[in-house]
Amino acid sequence: METLIGKPVDSAEVKEVFRLVSLQPLLGSTNETILEAVLLHSHGSLYGRGTSDDKGQVLAVLNAIEALQELPVNVKFLLEGMEEVGSQGLPALLEQQNTTFFSDVDYIVVTDTPWLRSKPGITYGTRGNSYFFLEMRCASRDLHSGGFGGIIQEAMNDLIFLLNSLVDSAGQILIPGIYEAVAPLTEKKKKLYEGNEYDLDQIKAKYGIKHFLYTTKEELLLRRSRYPSLSIHGITGAFSAPGTKTVIPAKVIGKFSIRQVPNMKPSVVEKQVTDYLTKKFAEQKSSNSVKITHVRGAKPWLSDINNPQFLAARKAIKRVFGKEPDMIRVGGTIPVVTYFEELTGKSIMLLGIFGPDDATHGQDEKISRYNFIEGTKLYAAFLHELATL
Amino acid sequence: METLIGKPVDSAEVKEVFRLVSLQPLLGSTNETILEAVLLHSHGSLYGRGTSDDKGQVLAVLNAIEALQELPVNVKFLLEGMEEVGSQGLPALLEQQNTTFFSDVDYIVVTDTPWLRSKPGITYGTRGNSYFFLEMRCASRDLHSGGFGGIIQEAMNDLIFLLNSLVDSAGQILIPGIYEAVAPLTEKKKKLYEGNEYDLDQIKAKYGIKHFLYTTKEELLLRRSRYPSLSIHGITGAFSAPGTKTVIPAKVIGKFSIRQVPNMKPSVVEKQVTDYLTKKFAEQKSSNSVKITHVRGAKPWLSDINNPQFLAARKAIKRVFGKEPDMIRVGGTIPVVTYFEELTGKSIMLLGIFGPDDATHGQDEKISRYNFIEGTKLYAAFLHELATL
Repeated sequence: METLIGKPVDSAEVKEVFRLVSLQPLLGSTNETILEAVLLHSHGSLYGRGTSDDKGQVLAVLNAIEALQELPVNVKFLLEGMEEVGSQGLPALLEQQNTTFFSDVDYIVVTDTPWLRSKPGITYGTRGNSYFFLEMRCASRDLHSGGFGGIIQEAMNDLIFLLNSLVDSAGQILIPGIYEAVAPLTEKKKKLYEGNEYDLDQIKAKYGIKHFLYTTKEELLLRRSRYPSLSIHGITGAFSAPGTKTVIPAKVIGKFSIRQVPNMKPSVVEKQVTDYLTKKFAEQKSSNSVKITHVRGAKPWLSDINNPQFLAARKAIKRVFGKEPDMIRVGGTIPVVTYFEELTGKSIMLLGIFGPDDATHGQDEKISRYNFIEGTKLYAAFLHELATL
Repeated sequence: METLIGKPVDSAEVKEVFRLVSLQPLLGSTNETILEAVLLHSHGSLYGRGTSDDKGQVLAVLNAIEALQELPVNVKFLLEGMEEVGSQGLPALLEQQNTTFFSDVDYIVVTDTPWLRSKPGITYGTRGNSYFFLEMRCASRDLHSGGFGGIIQEAMNDLIFLLNSLVDSAGQILIPGIYEAVAPLTEKKKKLYEGNEYDLDQIKAKYGIKHFLYTTKEELLLRRSRYPSLSIHGITGAFSAPGTKTVIPAKVIGKFSIRQVPNMKPSVVEKQVTDYLTKKFAEQKSSNSVKITHVRGAKPWLSDINNPQFLAARKAIKRVFGKEPDMIRVGGTIPVVTYFEELTGKSIMLLGIFGPDDATHGQDEKISRYNFIEGTKLYAAFLHELATL
């Protein structure tokens, strides 16, 4: 959600929109009762899809405003229902509203980012996301592996070959040129990571991760926020159900995405990926049909942490929590942030309140009561601090 | 289905069992009306899941017997409901019934094999099927690729790496020793393939295949029936839905199977696959957890084509179609065949009636009216020829 500091809107109306807040699909929850529409209060946390990303954070802002009764500054809301699928339609809407709805807005706050640990953080950078579909086709319909196994080039083989060429076991992307545009790391910027709170053992235990590719907190935070990564998410069109099926899938689509960082451009990434995969596919000497589609190119984002609203947020955090915040660059992507900034020219800040172990996009998503309640106080305090700027 | 030549059973009872005949799951039919329970008559063919594999062929036998009114030999039925999932439970049942139900049976006929073209064929060999689950785990729950991309070894990367090591682009299996046990090809056996009818262009057009790995009919038939092949069927646990999701799947299971041939033993294949993948995984230097499971090991089968029931079938084909049959080794697997043969010591023959373009296990499965009706006549004639042996 974006909170736009300007004049208030009717909150009843806003609550209607809130139901639409964008969610990731829910697969394989370990607790069958935790469904998309259910909220479960257990062990000091609120469980359910969207409790942290992003229904919970939207609700915290609404609660803060309700508690304040009288607003110290004007507030406008923009509730985004398609963030998880690339914010289609939003850029056009922003453009349309730029000189009307946005004209009296001074600051834009997005409430969709995690803290690193139990201390609040202000996010001033995100990675981008270039999402690719890699389609391979060996026939016009699925085939029986008894009748056709061994006499055709199977689409799955070619797809697996190409997917295997993308990243090595140390997490390094193998696409030539992909690291060229990455901004160099200065000593001053490196220092920003040192104060950050991040508990490797807590994260390992929470997610059942045996091993990180890097050993120190600083390296880990650097790697996941200011360097690109490539993840293979899955394959559509192959056999994915439980049990066995002896099929040769006719058309399969491998899905992977690159989290790019400043100053990588999605259009350049697209060309690098397409050129590389086209070259690798030629090596395979296959007669199958390949199609590479760049379905989404969300840019990375980096802000100025000395902007007045960042100072107001720091003061508010000091007031509610009695300490300085972590200044954070996150590994994820919030596509709308760069659109906002480029279009409106306004200052934008990410002030989310969820925890690092909330399993957003995963099974059994939750938000802790502590984050939800103290986060609500933080939003109220922030509006007050803004008024005193 | 297996037709056991012995005393007849009550056909009303049999028809109840028929509903259970084993089917493959139905995915992505191009015609929404063609569902598992629906039969569509169109362009001279009967469309629907199981029309050829294996409901249609069961029904042809029942129709033949109904038409005969008086049976020239006794017939017993065994209707198999779990062939598509590895015939669990059947071996135990066969063992139990070996000295009772099977005691007065002379010949066993399985009705679950295709013709090569428009001419009937008798099948005297099948490939086996060793099915493997290759499980890889990097976390206890799915992760957000923004938060974890670049700092952990992703399970999908390791799985893709291992799957990519199984077979090359020319269809050759890369597992050491896998071809060692393959029976050598004699000139006499090679000759058996020369008379076979198989229309490469028809098959290409039907299935939208651009290119076969071999250019002649003989090579193609040899490759798909007396040499092993390996197919990667899919991945369970990764993102497989349409659209995009930026997940790092925590636990993924790659599914592949090997169609093995005489004299490859499933237990040896299992060891070769496990040893090879264990060695390859060590090369990857990953901290992830791997588990290799041999979920099914169905043996290949090869019979004596000079057995009396094969002669009766040839005569019946000559009578109904006016020509000699193709003598066929198929690429698929009918696990129960080897169980029958080894346990009962009886002669077993595969006399199916479906066409090479019926899309069994694929989308829009069908059987042509010609095959269904002439096949019904063939079964009736076969019972007569058996009686005159």
